[in-house]
Amino acid sequence: MSKPMFPALAQFVAATAGRNMTKAAYVAVTVGVVSMVLLTLDPAYEAAHRWVDFLLWACLVYFVFEWLVRLRHMARQGRLGLYMSSSAGLVDALGALAVPVALVLGAEPKTAWLLSVLWVLKVVPGIPGLRQLRRVLVLESGPLLSVLVIFLMVVFLASVAEYFLERDVQPQTFGSVPAALWWAVVTLTTTGYGDVVPVTPLGRMVAALVMISGLGVFGLWTGILATGFAAETRRDNFLKTWESVSKVPFFAALGPAAIADVTHMLRTMELPARTMIIRKGAQGDCMYFIAAGAVEVDLPGKKVQLGEGAFFGEMALLGNNMRGANVSTTKVSRLLVLDLVDFRVLMARHPDLAETIDAEAKRRTLENK
Amino acid sequence: MSKPMFPALAQFVAATAGRNMTKAAYVAVTVGVVSMVLLTLDPAYEAAHRWVDFLLWACLVYFVFEWLVRLRHMARQGRLGLYMSSSAGLVDALGALAVPVALVLGAEPKTAWLLSVLWVLKVVPGIPGLRQLRRVLVLESGPLLSVLVIFLMVVFLASVAEYFLERDVQPQTFGSVPAALWWAVVTLTTTGYGDVVPVTPLGRMVAALVMISGLGVFGLWTGILATGFAAETRRDNFLKTWESVSKVPFFAALGPAAIADVTHMLRTMELPARTMIIRKGAQGDCMYFIAAGAVEVDLPGKKVQLGEGAFFGEMALLGNNMRGANVSTTKVSRLLVLDLVDFRVLMARHPDLAETIDAEAKRRTLENK
Amino acid sequence: MSKPMFPALAQFVAATAGRNMTKAAYVAVTVGVVSMVLLTLDPAYEAAHRWVDFLLWACLVYFVFEWLVRLRHMARQGRLGLYMSSSAGLVDALGALAVPVALVLGAEPKTAWLLSVLWVLKVVPGIPGLRQLRRVLVLESGPLLSVLVIFLMVVFLASVAEYFLERDVQPQTFGSVPAALWWAVVTLTTTGYGDVVPVTPLGRMVAALVMISGLGVFGLWTGILATGFAAETRRDNFLKTWESVSKVPFFAALGPAAIADVTHMLRTMELPARTMIIRKGAQGDCMYFIAAGAVEVDLPGKKVQLGEGAFFGEMALLGNNMRGANVSTTKVSRLLVLDLVDFRVLMARHPDLAETIDAEAKRRTLENK
Amino acid sequence: MSKPMFPALAQFVAATAGRNMTKAAYVAVTVGVVSMVLLTLDPAYEAAHRWVDFLLWACLVYFVFEWLVRLRHMARQGRLGLYMSSSAGLVDALGALAVPVALVLGAEPKTAWLLSVLWVLKVVPGIPGLRQLRRVLVLESGPLLSVLVIFLMVVFLASVAEYFLERDVQPQTFGSVPAALWWAVVTLTTTGYGDVVPVTPLGRMVAALVMISGLGVFGLWTGILATGFAAETRRDNFLKTWESVSKVPFFAALGPAAIADVTHMLRTMELPARTMIIRKGAQGDCMYFIAAGAVEVDLPGKKVQLGEGAFFGEMALLGNNMRGANVSTTKVSRLLVLDLVDFRVLMARHPDLAETIDAEAKRRTLENK
Repeated sequence: MSKPMFPALAQFVAATAGRNMTKAAYVAVTVGVVSMVLLTLDPAYEAAHRWVDFLLWACLVYFVFEWLVRLRHMARQGRLGLYMSSSAGLVDALGALAVPVALVLGAEPKTAWLLSVLWVLKVVPGIPGLRQLRRVLVLESGPLLSVLVIFLMVVFLASVAEYFLERDVQPQTFGSVPAALWWAVVTLTTTGYGDVVPVTPLGRMVAALVMISGLGVFGLWTGILATGFAAETRRDNFLKTWESVSKVPFFAALGPAAIADVTHMLRTMELPARTMIIRKGAQGDCMYFIAAGAVEVDLPGKKVQLGEGAFFGEMALLGNNMRGANVSTTKVSRLLVLDLVDFRVLMARHPDLAETIDAEAKRRTLENK
Repeated sequence: MSKPMFPALAQFVAATAGRNMTKAAYVAVTVGVVSMVLLTLDPAYEAAHRWVDFLLWACLVYFVFEWLVRLRHMARQGRLGLYMSSSAGLVDALGALAVPVALVLGAEPKTAWLLSVLWVLKVVPGIPGLRQLRRVLVLESGPLLSVLVIFLMVVFLASVAEYFLERDVQPQTFGSVPAALWWAVVTLTTTGYGDVVPVTPLGRMVAALVMISGLGVFGLWTGILATGFAAETRRDNFLKTWESVSKVPFFAALGPAAIADVTHMLRTMELPARTMIIRKGAQGDCMYFIAAGAVEVDLPGKKVQLGEGAFFGEMALLGNNMRGANVSTTKVSRLLVLDLVDFRVLMARHPDLAETIDAEAKRRTLENK
Repeated sequence: MSKPMFPALAQFVAATAGRNMTKAAYVAVTVGVVSMVLLTLDPAYEAAHRWVDFLLWACLVYFVFEWLVRLRHMARQGRLGLYMSSSAGLVDALGALAVPVALVLGAEPKTAWLLSVLWVLKVVPGIPGLRQLRRVLVLESGPLLSVLVIFLMVVFLASVAEYFLERDVQPQTFGSVPAALWWAVVTLTTTGYGDVVPVTPLGRMVAALVMISGLGVFGLWTGILATGFAAETRRDNFLKTWESVSKVPFFAALGPAAIADVTHMLRTMELPARTMIIRKGAQGDCMYFIAAGAVEVDLPGKKVQLGEGAFFGEMALLGNNMRGANVSTTKVSRLLVLDLVDFRVLMARHPDLAETIDAEAKRRTLENK
Repeated sequence: MSKPMFPALAQFVAATAGRNMTKAAYVAVTVGVVSMVLLTLDPAYEAAHRWVDFLLWACLVYFVFEWLVRLRHMARQGRLGLYMSSSAGLVDALGALAVPVALVLGAEPKTAWLLSVLWVLKVVPGIPGLRQLRRVLVLESGPLLSVLVIFLMVVFLASVAEYFLERDVQPQTFGSVPAALWWAVVTLTTTGYGDVVPVTPLGRMVAALVMISGLGVFGLWTGILATGFAAETRRDNFLKTWESVSKVPFFAALGPAAIADVTHMLRTMELPARTMIIRKGAQGDCMYFIAAGAVEVDLPGKKVQLGEGAFFGEMALLGNNMRGANVSTTKVSRLLVLDLVDFRVLMARHPDLAETIDAEAKRRTLENK
């Protein structure tokens, strides 16, 4: 499995050696996986097996190459061990080695290439908010585990009961406990294929109980996750926002305690350059503070620039709630969004802030006369 | 497809050109869709195809007509572009053009008319609380998306695994990855048609894992939505109520900070004229403040009128909780409802308010002696 | 259908004319419904049709009788109209008239008696916490309705799509939109009977989308209900507790504002006489205040009586958390339960209360030396 | 069924007579249950029936033995009655007696041994967080029960309706109300086996309603559990943490009210000896207080020991959030974890604490220069 080493390509990959997923990688994953699927579709494969094979090999080469580049990159930084033991490192290794190893071990090609499904795992680190989900699962692992144990216990007891009740009537489907286990899982998850169904009156009563407890198990599960998630969301938002808040002079006036409050009220928004934030004439239900970057207010006569620390969109919250002008970013910006509700609560708690905003609003109205 | 332009009709529609749905439109949607359904029911259609065809055409004409009227209306207001790019505008256009275009493109009529199902989309903007749901979906889109990606990844890995495990035993159902994908979706959503079922022991173990993670995915989903929804509900109620609170002199005494509290305690209620709010002898668990409109208290001897800013229903919260008299609106009114629980908390926090209410209650009792 | 009027029976029923369900009524409902079920079980019915018929008639007579008694009772109190228009009144009327009317109208007896299933409705008013559930459904009706509308819209669009995609391949199952609607509902609720299953690739893609949005719809639904329920639970508990709190001298010291806090911390418990509340040697994680009734502490040497306003079980919260003695009610009692967590928060916020409790605890320890 | 009494074994078990599950017991449960499963797998059993029988008997002997030992142990402590009436005692008794009794009563061996499934119940008390789940179920039992009653009522009404609508078309599946009940449960739980499916238009409408209310019932259920669970989690954590907090001098400064706050912010973590808590170079989002035990900070030059009451990991929260050194426990320890979010809120509310931490941080930085 020879592999040419074009410097250009090397540079290109080296440049992104550190990052989790490059655009190229996304393309490779998609192409590779689609080809793998086609490989299993006999008609499609017969029609275009040359192409499919070529694409699969191309993707494989790419991933092997990417992996090697990363290994070298990490080795140079002396983080080789850390990388290889990291989940990202393992996924890269799997993606690069699984198929070749299988082929070398003499697996039937069509089967070996199925392993290229592992390439999709490369996408995982890129999933938005995955960290958040993981934290919930970790923190709530205790209760979640106990629900799982309960689940398994119900499955087990139920399947033995059904085996006892149904084995004589349906020896082929309830002929052993493992067979009954299959039924129990299918039933307790309320999937209900219908391939295995109790027919004796008693068997059906047990089944009914299993279904109902299925709802219960499920409800507990959801309840736990909902609880954990609510907490996590608040936390995540707080962390994102905290840094920025202190940077906005407007809030500097507040004591640290008040800032902690305010942080819970704000939402952070990351925007690329030249993005429209406010559309003239639209309903307005929040105001914005510029934590980083800059925006341009598109007023009738002129264009006004606002930089870090400035705020805008307050007009709509004070009087009529119609946006008076278009506003869009001029560079990559981080904005803090203050919702109408929190705006009012905040103004109520801190009259001084209310005055600052009113004053500014007045000034602007006069100016734009 | 010529279209007569009766001035009367024009007026009628023009009058409602701005509104989303007129009564006529609701009728048209219902009639049109029902006819479309009948069109597909061969026996019904054979029996009354003349009528069905006529109704379908009538509805189509109506929608085309409505669309044109709106176009003209918007054009006059110079909001043509805004309207045509708005979702409402697109739905109107689809409703008016889909079927004709299909017919013109020579689609078989019975098929072309199926497109009239798009008419139901006109109902969407009228759904109560839809805005609220959309906000939840937008704000929680991050986590929801990541759950979706996890969902897809599980589906994909599972289907490849099953394809590998089952293809030899059941070539017709697990003969390719796409076929296995179908099984995976049906299973992970716990739908479980039972048309495709793994039979090998390993295949069933994988399936069991898929079902259980199905519950997990679902639980996460619900957890996220529940979290988002809780926040949204509070916000929505606050916005509805805030404006009105400040208009009620009773609360004016409170400082702005306290008003923010109170707003969280109140619920807004919009009522048409001549609606009974309180029925004599019923259990009372809340009191009312009149933010707009007026009510009439039906006392033994006389009828007492209460106008904006007044409150009523406090008696039931102070002593015995039986309503003492019928109360009903005399005109369209907006009421603020203070629940028994919040009433007590509020009275506890603001003794002055408690006194005001007690005094008023006493006065009324004397008066009505 | 003549009906003897034994004074004894009349008294018996009259005594309970006001109440929703008497023990007798529960028996009648159970017996009646079971007999109705047996009526449909041919073997069972052939075996004992005489008995079944007799029981059914007996129950019917009972319900007719109960209804008449209530009518008279209400008429005397001049609340006849209120009663007949109330849900309880309607259910009573249905239970009494449905079967006879059906028989009179010449319905086949076996069918007519099926209507006796309506008797189960009499149980509804007795369901614990139903009021709470209803309030949730009412308050959240807005969002719930909009989810329902979305549900129906998805069902409708999906079924038309499937009809279009599958009608040629499976004319018998997807031969008309109504047929496809059946499939859509079965799928969107993730029930998945498997009697109607799409087979075309496109049809399956649509189906997959329907299943996934099924999870979404369901998630929203649950989210809304969870939100509403959380609020309702707090409210319900507050109302149950508030009255009692003010009656306990221990809390009288606190200002009204503090009492509102405390009320949120306490849980009310209604107990019959001679019920064991605390078992010696058990783990203790809460203390009790007697709002009404009395308890007996079973100490080594003697039995100590505690009456209204007294508290007990605090020892376990102060030092070692093992219960030191058995405590049981001597008459019907209402207790306020203060959980360990809230106990600590409360003591922290109100040192004076902490002292009162410590003092009392010390006194008791000395006394019981 | 004679049973030898080796002193060694006796000691071994006696040592653990008090505990719920010993390692040996876990092994016995696993082995026993697996053998029982094999017993039902004819091929497997024929292959190794000698082994299977032997293992089953061995496990049985173990459990009988364990039970007797516990009985004696409890008898000596005079807690025999308490033990035998406790759930643990009942489970032990069942595990020891069920199979023998069945065999004595002359049940067919293969059937009698099925009762060994009861052995899994011994695992229950060991499930983490089960107490928490049980508390939720107990506290929310009211609403949960009413949902259950509603569930049963819907099932019942629906099945009678379907029986009436479908009995003529499908006498074999809807031929009696009990048969229809089976359908109703399968449908309302959205399991949907598909073995019984309504075919008449009206029957399908009823079925659709049942499915939709199935979602509703389920939603309520989940909502209730989610609500209860949220409360329980907070409580559980508070109890775990409270004791420890007061032991940490750092917090002693705070008044009791503030301590109650802090307790809600902290999370308790129990760690075995020689466990790595902080890995150098990792992201840091929390700091630790040592409630019990001791840790070792692995600094470039030296190893620093920290004992009870000390805190560490604050550096990452103050400046750059990279961990500066490895930290691991030297003995079994209980740590209090303060999350970044709560850290900031806390520092904001209590500037004095902030100073203490800053001072300490400075001191350490200088020291480690």
